[in-house]
Amino acid sequence: MRLNPDYAEGESTIVRILGIDPGTHRMGYGMVESNTAGDLSSPAWGVLSAKSSHELGERLYRLYIELSEVMAKFRPDEVAVEEPFVSVNARTAMAVGQAQGLALMAAAAQGISVSRYPPRQVKQAVSGYGGASKEQVQQAVAMSLDLDAKAVPEDAADALAVALCHVQNWRAAGLIAGEV
Amino acid sequence: MRLNPDYAEGESTIVRILGIDPGTHRMGYGMVESNTAGDLSSPAWGVLSAKSSHELGERLYRLYIELSEVMAKFRPDEVAVEEPFVSVNARTAMAVGQAQGLALMAAAAQGISVSRYPPRQVKQAVSGYGGASKEQVQQAVAMSLDLDAKAVPEDAADALAVALCHVQNWRAAGLIAGEV
Repeated sequence: MRLNPDYAEGESTIVRILGIDPGTHRMGYGMVESNTAGDLSSPAWGVLSAKSSHELGERLYRLYIELSEVMAKFRPDEVAVEEPFVSVNARTAMAVGQAQGLALMAAAAQGISVSRYPPRQVKQAVSGYGGASKEQVQQAVAMSLDLDAKAVPEDAADALAVALCHVQNWRAAGLIAGEV
Repeated sequence: MRLNPDYAEGESTIVRILGIDPGTHRMGYGMVESNTAGDLSSPAWGVLSAKSSHELGERLYRLYIELSEVMAKFRPDEVAVEEPFVSVNARTAMAVGQAQGLALMAAAAQGISVSRYPPRQVKQAVSGYGGASKEQVQQAVAMSLDLDAKAVPEDAADALAVALCHVQNWRAAGLIAGEV
């Protein structure tokens, strides 16, 4: 778990979103907060990883427990998960289903509502271009949240990106302050 | 949960297998026991179902809790799960992954080892024919376990079938008594 040393929790925080990039080996997560002025920051991000030597069920269970701990610690108002491609092959889709399923379960267990976003929409939201590269997404995420792009691992950046996408959706709906 | 009224637990029970037919709306389960003489019986079978009105995460979480309760109650030595087709489309594969993932997690949480079998192997094991119809599988399962075929719902019959397939694999390996 990576706590942001530059982060100072303010009383003006009005919304806390946990973004998740699901995987059966590595699961990225990233918290994004917006204050009443619409300023965005990230108190924490990280990548949960399961040992490859463990059986699939054991990996899923451990990721579930660890992700549940992240939710209990940071108490997000809502969770945003990347909704995978429908164009991938069946074996990949099954693995994505396993990983995404445990993220949805962990949120349901704590009564937190979940939104799902397709990768194109996430990329569009953070970088303004649906076909953005991994690097462009990382750069855009770092800029939005005032982070050092090199310090944020790829899976965590993807998780922060989906959280930012969700915040932008809230803004577009006029639910919170800030520019779309 | 359906308890078999004709079932009498014997001290000679040597192996208890829980078969699972995973689904995100309906999840079939079936316990199969083999005694030292190689006689097979089923103490219980059933279908867990989640309300369609619930969100996906809520459905998965409730099925997870209920399946965990089944495992805690019947304490299977091992779990056998149907391994889905790889030929299905990506959306179906994702749903299967979600359902199968929670079954694997529930077993891992209780330290129970899980085997996975493709549908063809399950059908071959119970009916002698890999292309058997649903009805043929139901009939074969009922005959093997001395059950009334009409009393066992399809999803539960599929779950009992995968448990029988696992028992047959143990027999083939010489681990327990009985004809292959």
